[in-house]
Amino acid sequence: MRVLITVEYDGKNFCGWQIQPGKRTVQGVLSDAFFSLFGKNTVIYGSGRTDSGVHALNQKAHFDYDGQVPTDKIPLAVNTLLPDDVSVKNARIVPDGFDARFSAKKKTYRYDFYFSRVHRPLYDSRAARVPFSADKFDIGKAKEVLSLLTGTHDFAAFSSTGRPVESSVRTIFDASISLSGDIYSITVTGNGFLYNMVRIIAGTVIETALSLRPVSDVKKALESGNRIFCGKTFPPHGLTLISVDYDL
Amino acid sequence: MRVLITVEYDGKNFCGWQIQPGKRTVQGVLSDAFFSLFGKNTVIYGSGRTDSGVHALNQKAHFDYDGQVPTDKIPLAVNTLLPDDVSVKNARIVPDGFDARFSAKKKTYRYDFYFSRVHRPLYDSRAARVPFSADKFDIGKAKEVLSLLTGTHDFAAFSSTGRPVESSVRTIFDASISLSGDIYSITVTGNGFLYNMVRIIAGTVIETALSLRPVSDVKKALESGNRIFCGKTFPPHGLTLISVDYDL
Repeated sequence: MRVLITVEYDGKNFCGWQIQPGKRTVQGVLSDAFFSLFGKNTVIYGSGRTDSGVHALNQKAHFDYDGQVPTDKIPLAVNTLLPDDVSVKNARIVPDGFDARFSAKKKTYRYDFYFSRVHRPLYDSRAARVPFSADKFDIGKAKEVLSLLTGTHDFAAFSSTGRPVESSVRTIFDASISLSGDIYSITVTGNGFLYNMVRIIAGTVIETALSLRPVSDVKKALESGNRIFCGKTFPPHGLTLISVDYDL
Repeated sequence: MRVLITVEYDGKNFCGWQIQPGKRTVQGVLSDAFFSLFGKNTVIYGSGRTDSGVHALNQKAHFDYDGQVPTDKIPLAVNTLLPDDVSVKNARIVPDGFDARFSAKKKTYRYDFYFSRVHRPLYDSRAARVPFSADKFDIGKAKEVLSLLTGTHDFAAFSSTGRPVESSVRTIFDASISLSGDIYSITVTGNGFLYNMVRIIAGTVIETALSLRPVSDVKKALESGNRIFCGKTFPPHGLTLISVDYDL
């Protein structure tokens, strides 16, 4: 049978999701734990990679399993074998044709940041520091940029690898910004994301709202596909994969 | 002149505030950094100790200084000499008679916790896990307990050391509970706190609201001074010193 799991992790001490020889990765740590639990190799298929340092509140992955542990007991059982920075929160049986990556309909990422001249020990693990005064940040401009990005566009400019061979057209269903305490959060839901796309969106929103670049650059970026019209790629530790949605 | 600083720290890797030989403490790390910055020993007087593992958003401390660094440049200067888990956020000149501990009028602590059968890597650094279903938590009862604790009482029962030689009478000005996402926060403001008092308040509120002990125990605890009527001492990593208030 095919099992879908929900995984939370603190990305700080992981070299990202994908298994790599000699590197500590989430997929690698999960594979080791399931090997111990099930007594056999179990290939874990994620909904997609996350980069080194990126967190996940609800990453999704599937694997095939024909053993004795009841599905609802899998989270508690495997968590006893997992380190503190990763946790399997949920497990359920899904149809055999289901695929954590290809069945995904929507993904939501959140980018967290704060403004401060000095670093903030209680924020730094999960939010990027922007060394400007918060007074200089025009949240109205931030919303304008997010509104321009919403919809179906060629996001080639918003990718670290440039225009790929496959299509760089993606649909953003929703993009918003909110403030809680001192932490700003940009939340973006789309049908898929290019490499570094959310971190470049964060850089573009922040630089524009700080008036370091004009709002008109966003239109130019979408029209030209030229990375030069976007902000810098913001650091990974501000990024969290919030959810992956399926028709289930 | 006397300088008051505001300090933020992540308590995880500190053996608390107070300097101890051979231990990594916040006061010790600050003393080392100020020694490097000023070129002489500088005694740092905190508003009070925090225990091993306890965090601070705005701890306060004072020291005397007659050197050349302008007060408003002290935070950026000393932060270059501090590790990532502690930061001096602010420095200001105060009257010579001022004392970070004895001039304090109010302190506010927050205790954060969440309910989950499995551990949560993105929450565990700053919130305590309670391995119950959130459905079992009656927030109305939690508010009832906090209301009973508000005011001037002998809090001897709410201390790990029992009834001290000095008075264990304290005033709680305000005590409340809120929910943000999955995280519950108990916030308590008082004129002072006994050893472990906020962590025992957290344990008492949580156990009562989970119906593990009756609300009437709280009155008995306040009347008798007997620790047996309180909940357990909750772990330090859920506790954060939020603010220390002065008449300045």
